[in-house]
Amino acid sequence: MVTPDCPSATAISATLATFIAASKWADMPDSVRRAARQATLNWLGCALGGSHDETVERLWAGLQDLAGPPHATLLGRAEKTDALTAALVNAVSSNVLDFDDTHLATVVHPTAVVAPALLALAEHRHSSGQDFLHALALGIECACRIGNAVGPAHYENGWHISGTCGVFGAAVAAGKLLGLDAQRMNRAIGIAATSASGLRLQLGSMTKCHNLGNAARSGLQAALLAAHGFTSSERALEAPRGFLSVLADAPDCEAVTCGLGEHWEILALAYKPYPCGVVIHPVIDACLDLPAQCAITAAAVARVDVFVNPLAIKLCGNPAPRNGLEAKLSIAHSVAVALIDGAAGVAQYLDARATDPAALALRTKVVLKPDAAIGKEQARVRITLADGGAHELFVEHARGSNGRPLSDAELETKFRGLANSVLSPPQIETTLGICRSLDTASDAGALARAAAG
Amino acid sequence: MVTPDCPSATAISATLATFIAASKWADMPDSVRRAARQATLNWLGCALGGSHDETVERLWAGLQDLAGPPHATLLGRAEKTDALTAALVNAVSSNVLDFDDTHLATVVHPTAVVAPALLALAEHRHSSGQDFLHALALGIECACRIGNAVGPAHYENGWHISGTCGVFGAAVAAGKLLGLDAQRMNRAIGIAATSASGLRLQLGSMTKCHNLGNAARSGLQAALLAAHGFTSSERALEAPRGFLSVLADAPDCEAVTCGLGEHWEILALAYKPYPCGVVIHPVIDACLDLPAQCAITAAAVARVDVFVNPLAIKLCGNPAPRNGLEAKLSIAHSVAVALIDGAAGVAQYLDARATDPAALALRTKVVLKPDAAIGKEQARVRITLADGGAHELFVEHARGSNGRPLSDAELETKFRGLANSVLSPPQIETTLGICRSLDTASDAGALARAAAG
Repeated sequence: MVTPDCPSATAISATLATFIAASKWADMPDSVRRAARQATLNWLGCALGGSHDETVERLWAGLQDLAGPPHATLLGRAEKTDALTAALVNAVSSNVLDFDDTHLATVVHPTAVVAPALLALAEHRHSSGQDFLHALALGIECACRIGNAVGPAHYENGWHISGTCGVFGAAVAAGKLLGLDAQRMNRAIGIAATSASGLRLQLGSMTKCHNLGNAARSGLQAALLAAHGFTSSERALEAPRGFLSVLADAPDCEAVTCGLGEHWEILALAYKPYPCGVVIHPVIDACLDLPAQCAITAAAVARVDVFVNPLAIKLCGNPAPRNGLEAKLSIAHSVAVALIDGAAGVAQYLDARATDPAALALRTKVVLKPDAAIGKEQARVRITLADGGAHELFVEHARGSNGRPLSDAELETKFRGLANSVLSPPQIETTLGICRSLDTASDAGALARAAAG
Repeated sequence: MVTPDCPSATAISATLATFIAASKWADMPDSVRRAARQATLNWLGCALGGSHDETVERLWAGLQDLAGPPHATLLGRAEKTDALTAALVNAVSSNVLDFDDTHLATVVHPTAVVAPALLALAEHRHSSGQDFLHALALGIECACRIGNAVGPAHYENGWHISGTCGVFGAAVAAGKLLGLDAQRMNRAIGIAATSASGLRLQLGSMTKCHNLGNAARSGLQAALLAAHGFTSSERALEAPRGFLSVLADAPDCEAVTCGLGEHWEILALAYKPYPCGVVIHPVIDACLDLPAQCAITAAAVARVDVFVNPLAIKLCGNPAPRNGLEAKLSIAHSVAVALIDGAAGVAQYLDARATDPAALALRTKVVLKPDAAIGKEQARVRITLADGGAHELFVEHARGSNGRPLSDAELETKFRGLANSVLSPPQIETTLGICRSLDTASDAGALARAAAG
């Protein structure tokens, strides 16, 4: 392991801390404000949808006897707990469905770490909605920029980047809400750096989400300690044997600070319309749109030819997934449920749907055709009917891709689909209303309370 | 960064977990039982002595509003809190004086991480003293063996090994107390692996101790979650992209499991008699023993020649430390206070002593003489008096070194010196009595309650 420092970048941590501490809402471009609202809406839906997953139930069962005073809501649930525990549990809820946002360049899932830490603290402190959105944007920015700095080798080498880089986002977001000055913000970054953890080998176990939960909790704790005068290295990112040297092979230290306040990574967040592998998404688009356009019923389908980039088949070519988790990485399953149900939401990837006889039968009619001329965000789908008729659709940009981002209306539809397992229709609309006007809410905690189960 | 896995070691995590889960008190050699009692005594004194350090005060100030029910004692203090928070705070108290035990081969400080997690849980659950000592020995074993496996490059590359390896010790010790079976013990190891963190660059700031506190807290949490059925990788140590591959350059995976139950690392723990750099210790021995033997008073000293290994001068040659922290790494200061006070305890390394005029004057009479023929555990000290007389002493094995381990009586003296800032003399003797017969105590929590401030 080499441990290069950042010789040309002498004050990365301090520069980042100073920027965050000095940032004002008035400095935030409208595009960033809107992105922060979208990130909040998308995140909150995911947290509600995941709030009763077995992973969350076991986590809370293990912690509830030791938890602190009920200052913060467990989203989608009846319980309240202390802000640190809420940050942990809500982050696990946010990530457990694999439906939360992604910073595609780094595969950081920033909002699932930053928002739970921040909303728990905001609810405890009765911070305003504007302060919440402002801190959220800064936290996401910090997590994604540090993700850029560690480079692809960081993830490749085994680090779960949403944990290792997410912790910084939670720390500075919470620090901003606490009003830390530049030096204390820098110390929050330092405490976060030394708390950064998470191994990618946990993907596939409950502990995968725990990596994000731990980052949310540790980031919030870092900010709380810095606020109380706890000291830390103030060069924790760039120093020899600092975070970037120890956890990255050849860090691009400048990526942390270059163009701060001018270029915003939050604008690059992608929101999944479907809770499955992202390379399947254009195929699902076609399988939802074609039947609607051509009045095709699943029963009439004889064969489905799916032309996709070879990578899609490599990652998601499984023709016979045995359970919901495997179904999330199966084009064939996704085609079947999209045609049968006219949907590809959480319900379509439950274990029961992965073993449903009708879905199994239709899967066998799906033929995957690799085509290197088709982009990763694209697909061509041809449906041949039992009567010999055929319909074909080419999807140029998948929904949720950077070429075809989800609209506010689509995000609200996604939210409703996720929230309806725990909130009544009126509660859903109330929560959506608070989200829409969060920048004028006097108490961001209202959002958490509206989203209690 | 290379990411070798452990091809010849296919089930390191499972083997370790199985050993811990199956271990019985009856299997523990007397030497290990005695070592566990000594480790407890030494650790508890350190925790008491550090319990009101500014680091602890700021930590607790930052956390107390969010802490849970009062199940566990904050050692040396009036407060109680939940077991997770107590593990964190007490671990920081244990390490803040730099006076806790050391596994010299790895520089892991195991007991400061393992014991706080374990005693907090034991107090909450009213576990027996025997179960506490048994789990403590197993936890220390696990932390030190994983420390052996990551090798010296781990620390050299920037990892704070007491944090990164300590977390495993806390996890398996707590897991043992919870009665985890082998599979759940393995999952506790897995959750610990993905929580492992701590950068060495924090040495010199409050966050140095936080690395140990975080490990204690995270290890306990890992065990609690595993006990509630939380799943994790069950090859988290040895898998490709597992802990050993990601955090070590060329791990010696076999070191984790080789000779388990036959060879015990706890027998190699070293206890410091003085809270300062270990290379200064033989010099202090001479400066305490010579005056006692020869009736020398500090006022009569004209010159002190100190012959030591060159490494001691390299590390601790500072002739004019400006504060207590620097004084801990100064032979000259240590000589001065040992001669003036006849002691080298916590009081001799406070800021006030580092700037005391009498100590400053005597420091200038200390002459350091490097001599490569003198071992690192050795020193020769010649004191020349104002009247021309001279006395000389050669220390062959410093107190606390492996060649001259501290006796139980010396450990009790150290305990009394540390505890007297927070406990009354009768409380000290009560606590010592519980320590001495901890293996027969029906409730290990009695030790914590006796050590409340």
